[in-house]
Amino acid sequence: MNEVIKLLKSHRSIRKFGDQPIAPEILDELLTAGQAAATSSFIEASTVIRVCNPETRQKLVEYSGGQHYVASAAEFLVFCADLSRAGMCCDMQNVEQEKGFTEHFIIATVDVALMAQNVTIAAESLGLGICYIGGLRNNPQGVSELLDLPDQVYPVFGYCLGYPDQDVDLRPRLPLAVVLKQERYNTKGDQDAITGYDKIVEQYYEKRLGGGKSMTWSKQVAGLAGKEARPHMLPYLQSKGFLKR
Amino acid sequence: MNEVIKLLKSHRSIRKFGDQPIAPEILDELLTAGQAAATSSFIEASTVIRVCNPETRQKLVEYSGGQHYVASAAEFLVFCADLSRAGMCCDMQNVEQEKGFTEHFIIATVDVALMAQNVTIAAESLGLGICYIGGLRNNPQGVSELLDLPDQVYPVFGYCLGYPDQDVDLRPRLPLAVVLKQERYNTKGDQDAITGYDKIVEQYYEKRLGGGKSMTWSKQVAGLAGKEARPHMLPYLQSKGFLKR
Repeated sequence: MNEVIKLLKSHRSIRKFGDQPIAPEILDELLTAGQAAATSSFIEASTVIRVCNPETRQKLVEYSGGQHYVASAAEFLVFCADLSRAGMCCDMQNVEQEKGFTEHFIIATVDVALMAQNVTIAAESLGLGICYIGGLRNNPQGVSELLDLPDQVYPVFGYCLGYPDQDVDLRPRLPLAVVLKQERYNTKGDQDAITGYDKIVEQYYEKRLGGGKSMTWSKQVAGLAGKEARPHMLPYLQSKGFLKR
Repeated sequence: MNEVIKLLKSHRSIRKFGDQPIAPEILDELLTAGQAAATSSFIEASTVIRVCNPETRQKLVEYSGGQHYVASAAEFLVFCADLSRAGMCCDMQNVEQEKGFTEHFIIATVDVALMAQNVTIAAESLGLGICYIGGLRNNPQGVSELLDLPDQVYPVFGYCLGYPDQDVDLRPRLPLAVVLKQERYNTKGDQDAITGYDKIVEQYYEKRLGGGKSMTWSKQVAGLAGKEARPHMLPYLQSKGFLKR
């Protein structure tokens, strides 16, 4: 295992940050490393909004369901999927933009995630810590108004960045055999493997939360998949010109 | 710039691979490094299908629009967004799965992209090369049948992996100022910056393709955004239980 793979395997989300600011040239370096990730058909559909203003940060804490580290992290970035820039290209070339295709939505969303993950690796290689904030999708309309997001742009996730002020245990992961299938999709052995994994996750939570609460992986996932999830997302996205066809 | 950031910035897609196979323990290592990426709400919604069978590979070449490296790469992986496993968790917990939420689709798609990008960095740190194959979405129904993908699973992209047998120039990227906005979304200066970038991209293509064909970035992006894009994706995804609400 080389140093890079060791670094990748040491990822954990950080939610408590020290006061130390990040030098502007380091932030630029991280984002440039992010841009180097693959981009579908060279579309470069990511836009990152750097939010420093404390009032805006505070609103974003609120919109993301009270995650205070959105305010306290040295940097807070909003990673947006951006097809509006492609629209500018269409204007420059006197071409009518074809909007609303699900395929374009996927392309832009994947572009953003690939870029952000590169930023993550670059940040962690410098001793920084990060946390993805999917919670921004609690109130994407509020975020859009706050950050002036135009049509064809949506906030995929927020992103806290700073020097860690906590030590966090590695979270377990599913056995590779569950995630990696040979030749075809099949679920042979998965339920047994998940039952075994449930015990590992239960121990992890016991250690982390100090007994009392018993939580397994399948229980947590069933809790998520068994209830409605941000039902405003589809109407919101359609209002922004996405996912119409 | 440290070695990790140097590695990130040296990414290029590889489409010509040597014959050298990848040792199974290395492949496992790459995928385990992939699993270490962040996962939304701990859902672990990625499934990777490793395709070795030459006939299956050949079909996938066809489905992805004739990209021959899908057959010739040492390894070909299909990265799937998988909410079917969450359904198994619901069954194990006697909970009814709530299907079709756009939010769950985003969570699973982002999960896959974060994992894949980790695999990419791990692979490149070992001198391997990769290429994302969005072209699998040309025929997602064919891919689904070929690989027995059940409801609640879709192929986000394919993935070629192997030892590079070509030297590829770095592709340019947009000036950071276009991609990184301060405090709020705005497009001030973007069109001028894109006009400048167009010249850089034009030179890149001239060098790569040896004159004759003149292609700028805005022209290429307008070509993509100005025409319909895989209009089958929405009905296909809905047929798999995604994006219904």
